[in-house]
Parts: sequence; structure tokens; C-alpha cells
Amino acid sequence: MTSVKKMVARKTIERRTGVALWRQITDRIRLAIGNGEYDATGMVPPETALAREFGVNRHTVRSALAALAEEGLVRAVQGRGTLIERKDRVIYPISRRTRFSAGLGRQVKEIGSSLLGHSKVQASGEVAAALALPPGSLVVELQTVSSGDGRPLSATVAYFPAERFPEMAQQYARLGSVTKAFAAQGLDDYVRVSTEIVARHAGAAELELLKLSPGAIVLEALSVNADLDGRPVEYSRTRFAADRMKFRIET
Amino acid sequence: MTSVKKMVARKTIERRTGVALWRQITDRIRLAIGNGEYDATGMVPPETALAREFGVNRHTVRSALAALAEEGLVRAVQGRGTLIERKDRVIYPISRRTRFSAGLGRQVKEIGSSLLGHSKVQASGEVAAALALPPGSLVVELQTVSSGDGRPLSATVAYFPAERFPEMAQQYARLGSVTKAFAAQGLDDYVRVSTEIVARHAGAAELELLKLSPGAIVLEALSVNADLDGRPVEYSRTRFAADRMKFRIET
Repeated sequence: MTSVKKMVARKTIERRTGVALWRQITDRIRLAIGNGEYDATGMVPPETALAREFGVNRHTVRSALAALAEEGLVRAVQGRGTLIERKDRVIYPISRRTRFSAGLGRQVKEIGSSLLGHSKVQASGEVAAALALPPGSLVVELQTVSSGDGRPLSATVAYFPAERFPEMAQQYARLGSVTKAFAAQGLDDYVRVSTEIVARHAGAAELELLKLSPGAIVLEALSVNADLDGRPVEYSRTRFAADRMKFRIET
Repeated sequence: MTSVKKMVARKTIERRTGVALWRQITDRIRLAIGNGEYDATGMVPPETALAREFGVNRHTVRSALAALAEEGLVRAVQGRGTLIERKDRVIYPISRRTRFSAGLGRQVKEIGSSLLGHSKVQASGEVAAALALPPGSLVVELQTVSSGDGRPLSATVAYFPAERFPEMAQQYARLGSVTKAFAAQGLDDYVRVSTEIVARHAGAAELELLKLSPGAIVLEALSVNADLDGRPVEYSRTRFAADRMKFRIET
């Protein structure tokens, strides 16, 4: 390795940062795949080349490639190398008319929705305020996970006014979609009235729910949906797997 | 420590994840501050309490608090403990009329803008497409960093059609704002036509530009602005310090 190469490697990968080398390299390779840097071959460069590029040993590169394989982004093929399986992040459009399933459109073949849990609870101050309900009103709480082609994309905790939508949990379990569950209870149309987005490291529960490799990032969206008269119908906190998603804001 | 406590701690902080314990604890404390969990006292709990809560030793807690102090979020006061200096993330509104300075409004007292570099270059395929220019057209490239009350908030690389805005760099250097630099060149109004957002770990250059602690996250926004006739006037890639910002989408 020449000294110039060494300098480049040092600029790229930082030691003693609190983030393991293999994880940093995972991120770099994922980014390079997303940016189309390997499009010419459709393959990730050989382990030896990556080890040289990042100034690390092959074992570290192998850990990074294993993490990417687990995410379904690459696949090791005996005797050939590491094939790129999927390049793009799923684009999630955010607009006044955001709908989860419709938003993903043709990007995924199969959308999965699981209801992990539900309950009827008294609204916290935050939830009551977001839904414009009197403090202590009953709300239906749903915990759900949505996936595209078997890959978890988002985990949501959502609250609905229980008086207006008493069947929310049952209808969601039956229909697999908030939009359809609303329709089954007489609400045919609704709009997104606010969305706030932050990014942070995933917590332990999120790692498990979204099948993320440790150290992964989530994009957390806090949203309020309202009916066409402006009455809030849903308040939700959705954690998206940042590695798998890209938001497109439509204003 | 009771076994129940141990279970809680184990659920909260994951070992062998590729992200150091002190960094995970930094994230948790930052989140707790943001969520107002320490509002009653205005202080972070004592090191011993945090060490117990997270199931780590005091040295690890101290590293986490040092990182938060470096970010300006907390301040150690001799004999009293760790004071919370600033709680909230800066809210950055994204709408058709997004303007950096106006968007931050009264949240920060002083907005700083530095021009780090500029050049006139031939547009890459990506840049030409975004600006709807013939391939190879000349564009002005600006590298800027913006800060609020001395804290870096975002680092941007922006491209402008050089024929239409030949003075972009000089005007930005003089006026410290893209909106004002446009106005000085005869463009009084423009709108955001598209925004894409991803989240990822900051690269080495971004850590330095945004004065982030290693392992930090950036929110990257790719945007196109156009004049009122729909002609693109700016294509930019802005990396926001995720710990310091929250996006509010206004649709």
C-alpha cells in the first residue's frame, strides 16, 4: 500500500469513533451500491480490493459483506464473488395524500402488514393533544409492522379515537391497511396534516422489529391524519429502516 | 442491582453491536432530554444513577456525558451535576416555499453562513438532468456551511446554471444567503419542486464540517428549486446534523 493510499483510507474510515470498522464499511459499501458505483459489473469489488481501499483486513470486509447479505442487498456466489441483489431504497412519498400501500406502488411486489398488538387505553396528554380529544379520552392503540417483499420497512404505533373507530384493531387485522380499516368504518377519505421527521440510532426493540443489524439508523416520522373537516383521525409514530427507505417530499 | 433491573438494562443497551456502549448511551440521554424526561430537575440524573440504569460503569457514562457536553447539550457544573443547556432540536420546515434563514425563524438568534469553496464546472449527468440543462453546461458550484448560534446545522453542495447566475459565488459571499443572492441577480421568487431525504452515518468530511462526534447521523436532502415558470434554478445536496434538527413537512 502506498502512502497516498494510506492517507485516503485514513480519511475514509475513522478508528476509535464508537462505531465499529465493519459497520462503517457496511455503510460505505451500501452507499456505493446506492450511488451506482458498481453498476458496470453488477458486483461488489473483491474482498482484497475492498480491504485495500478501506485500509482494513479481509476479516473486517467479510463481516461487512455478511451484514449486507443479511439485509438482502448482496449475495455471495461461489466462485464468482458478491453479486448486487438490489440497489435502490424504496421511495416513500410524503404528501397530503400519503397512503402506505399506494405510496410504495410497484416498487415492491408484496406488501405485508402485521398487527403485533392492540389495546384500548386512555390517551396520554401528547396523544390527546394530537387527536384534539379531551384528556383521558379512550383511544385504540395499534402496533404494526409493514414489509415489502418480506423485508420489514417500518414499525408503527398508531392511535385512533376509540369512540369514532371502535373496530380499528379488528378491521386492520382483517384488511391489513389503515386506509381500508377507516373505509370499513365509514371514513372514505383523509389527509396528512402534519409530519415531523427525525433520524436516530435504532433501539433494541426496533432492531428486532425491523430485523436490522445493530447500529442501524431509523427515520422516525410523527404524523397526524385528519378527515376532510379537519378532525384528527390518527396520530402515529412510525420508525422506518433508514437503510431501506428514501423519503420523497411532495409539496 | 436486582435481576429485574438487569433485564431492563439488557433490553436497553446492546453489547457487541458494532456501536460502542458510550455512544448508545449518548443517544439515549439525548433522546431523554429531547423527550423532556428530565424537565422536572433541568438536570441529567447523577452518573451513578445513569450507570445503574444502563448497566454500565461510571467511566462509560462519563464518556457519554462528555460527548453531550461537546455538542453543547449539557454542561457539567462543579458540585451540582450536569445541567441541561438546550433541549430541542431546531425545526426545519420543508414546503414549497422552503428558505433556510426564514425557516429557522426565531429558533436561533444568529444564523451563520460560510462559503467554503466555489467553482465554475461542467455539469455532471446528474446535475445537468436535475437542472434541465444540456449535458456539459457550465454550472456554479458552491460549498457552504450554515450554523445557528455558532453550532453547525448543515453542509451543502449546490449547483446553479452559470449562464443565468454568473455571480452566484460573489453574491453569496457578500449576502450570506441563496435567496438574497438570487434576488441580487434578478430572481425574486422561487419554489421547492422536489426533495428527497435519506439518513446515514456521517462520513469523515461531514464529521469535520458539522463538528459532529464520530458515529453521528446526517439527514441528507437532495432538492431542486425552480423559478415560477418551472425552470430549475438550483440543485443541492444538504447534509443536516440529525442530532440537532427535526424536519417538519408542510404539505
